[in-house]
Amino acid sequence: MDYNKKSVALHKKRRGKIEIRSKVPLKTRDDLSVAYTPGVAEVCREIGKDKKNSWTLTNRANQVAIVTDGTAILGLGNLGPEAAMPVMEGKAIIFKEFAGIDAIPLSINSTQVEDIVKFCKLIEPSFGGINLEDIAAPRCFEILARLEKELSIPVFHDDQDGTAIVVLAALINACRVTGKVMKELKIVLNGGGAAGLAITNLLLAQKIKDIILVDSRGIVYGGRKELNIYKAALAKKTNKKKLRGGLVEAMAGADVFIGVSKGNLVNKEMIESMNAGPIIFAMANPTPEIMPEAAYAGGASIVGTGRSDFPNQVNNALVFPGIFRGLLDGRIKQVTIKMKIAAALAIAYSVKPRKDKILPSVLDKKVVGAIAKSIISNQ
Amino acid sequence: MDYNKKSVALHKKRRGKIEIRSKVPLKTRDDLSVAYTPGVAEVCREIGKDKKNSWTLTNRANQVAIVTDGTAILGLGNLGPEAAMPVMEGKAIIFKEFAGIDAIPLSINSTQVEDIVKFCKLIEPSFGGINLEDIAAPRCFEILARLEKELSIPVFHDDQDGTAIVVLAALINACRVTGKVMKELKIVLNGGGAAGLAITNLLLAQKIKDIILVDSRGIVYGGRKELNIYKAALAKKTNKKKLRGGLVEAMAGADVFIGVSKGNLVNKEMIESMNAGPIIFAMANPTPEIMPEAAYAGGASIVGTGRSDFPNQVNNALVFPGIFRGLLDGRIKQVTIKMKIAAALAIAYSVKPRKDKILPSVLDKKVVGAIAKSIISNQ
Repeated sequence: MDYNKKSVALHKKRRGKIEIRSKVPLKTRDDLSVAYTPGVAEVCREIGKDKKNSWTLTNRANQVAIVTDGTAILGLGNLGPEAAMPVMEGKAIIFKEFAGIDAIPLSINSTQVEDIVKFCKLIEPSFGGINLEDIAAPRCFEILARLEKELSIPVFHDDQDGTAIVVLAALINACRVTGKVMKELKIVLNGGGAAGLAITNLLLAQKIKDIILVDSRGIVYGGRKELNIYKAALAKKTNKKKLRGGLVEAMAGADVFIGVSKGNLVNKEMIESMNAGPIIFAMANPTPEIMPEAAYAGGASIVGTGRSDFPNQVNNALVFPGIFRGLLDGRIKQVTIKMKIAAALAIAYSVKPRKDKILPSVLDKKVVGAIAKSIISNQ
Repeated sequence: MDYNKKSVALHKKRRGKIEIRSKVPLKTRDDLSVAYTPGVAEVCREIGKDKKNSWTLTNRANQVAIVTDGTAILGLGNLGPEAAMPVMEGKAIIFKEFAGIDAIPLSINSTQVEDIVKFCKLIEPSFGGINLEDIAAPRCFEILARLEKELSIPVFHDDQDGTAIVVLAALINACRVTGKVMKELKIVLNGGGAAGLAITNLLLAQKIKDIILVDSRGIVYGGRKELNIYKAALAKKTNKKKLRGGLVEAMAGADVFIGVSKGNLVNKEMIESMNAGPIIFAMANPTPEIMPEAAYAGGASIVGTGRSDFPNQVNNALVFPGIFRGLLDGRIKQVTIKMKIAAALAIAYSVKPRKDKILPSVLDKKVVGAIAKSIISNQ
């Protein structure tokens, strides 16, 4: 099926994907007097007396802002804030359909760290949480760190931790299926952006020792030119053999390839150069680093992509609805490393894994509850 | 009926009044592939190529931000941004129910002009228009003027021009009913905030010569101490007889009282001091300047309030849905004085006025189309 054409046609026909609806009736004068003036004044006074009442008397407790600057849209790069809206609206309908959360896309007109931080501080009274989205690295790291310190509502950067959690879940189950031992894996992680660095950090927290991070300039090693502070920190914890070179050199002899970079960077020969039966998560969107067919032809034992139209979808859409359900219901301020691991385990153990189904379907609504429960009980 | 209790109970039960819904199906893998990845990438690319495509491929063309800082909530004053949310959600459901517009409440955490202007500039790519709301004067005048200059989407401050338009419509019909001649009316306008100044300006544009503006310090006159620049400008155009004193002095001998101030400021005796059969619009919310019963007892010929539970509701809820329907459908950048007058006439002539029905009901859905048409055809 030509999803591109079909998607453009659907968006044109419906003019986007979201709408606002009323939860209360508004048909009579009485309805108006209760939902609006004069009755609403008393509701305002109640919140004026104690701001905390906004959590029970407005939609805030179920309302999340999806904030982006449009600089890292899918694997397409910086197309600007207007062009990010179709993805933001997509996230909003996933939030609602799978977790019952009302998420509002806010695509903003600045790429400055100060502006984005200021913006999130300004909208805090209207929301129960903030989902940062498609903001390019390394700015996204600084923004997340600042907001975690400066806001009193939870902030989650989906492309970082959502992706890291779903990759860890997929890896746990790939090991269950193949019998490989996670801590002994040699992992090549291709992508120096938000997802790549967050995945690396979460895998390191799982005590996986042999990780090689590769970005658009090649293998990351200590002392390489033009490393940002985040990559420089990871250079100390990865690539223990001080390997240099490109993706070809990195992949030779590896057990796992995790791609969060760009389409078509990996070929069959590179898969063949890996250890026997490698695990391949080629998650670039919309075009994976290698198509599943080619990866299997090269000897892969398990192949996942980010896409909805192949088996083994390794996509953070499986994660963010449940994370926010848990954050909102548990009134949790911050997603800790313990919660991330618990969430990955909750996802992994919500399915009996097979080679062609290492993760539950994004459409499986049980997963949201499992993730929410896992983070609430791991505070 | 006790609307206060009933309103608090409803808000508590439903946890606010709005929700986000999907306009497209999201039940199958195919649905996901079309609404989200991989198909959505092509939609992003289309907008990346030309930002204008955001008007046809996202919800932007039907989406309005309701922006407030919570400093002038109804007639309650500055209760803070959290406390403004019940009113904002109320406006959002009125927008949807009566004009089919998706309006998103954004209650923000700063009262600084620069912050509010900056905020609106940041959200511009996500919205087709901005409805400023419950922002205290005189900051609201500067903010509106700045935004009209600096944004490429329309900005409308409901409390100013929405109120001015509905008052003019009510006055037109009160004259039709009573046979009074509008230009000859002696009008007392009580309220030195956003609404009071905007109403005064619109009435002056209708060539009404005898207007006295009264604020919390008394009658506004040239040279009075502590007049802001907006009131000082109006002092030159109103109060030609240089009257001084308070509301009591202003009302003696007047034909019309328009209140956009606070509850219970006017008594029966003050109505009796006016010319025969005066027109009273006591629009303070939730408590009018004088209750209708008392005003009629004092000899009023027509009494209107802002409330949904009395006849003759003079409330900007009758205006803003139609204004925005017109702004969005006509891709209109700014509401001109010509459009405001056209909108008031459209409202006035959409009903055959009687003493107890000088305006169409807020629930009358025909009004939205009439207003929208009037502003589109008066560009």
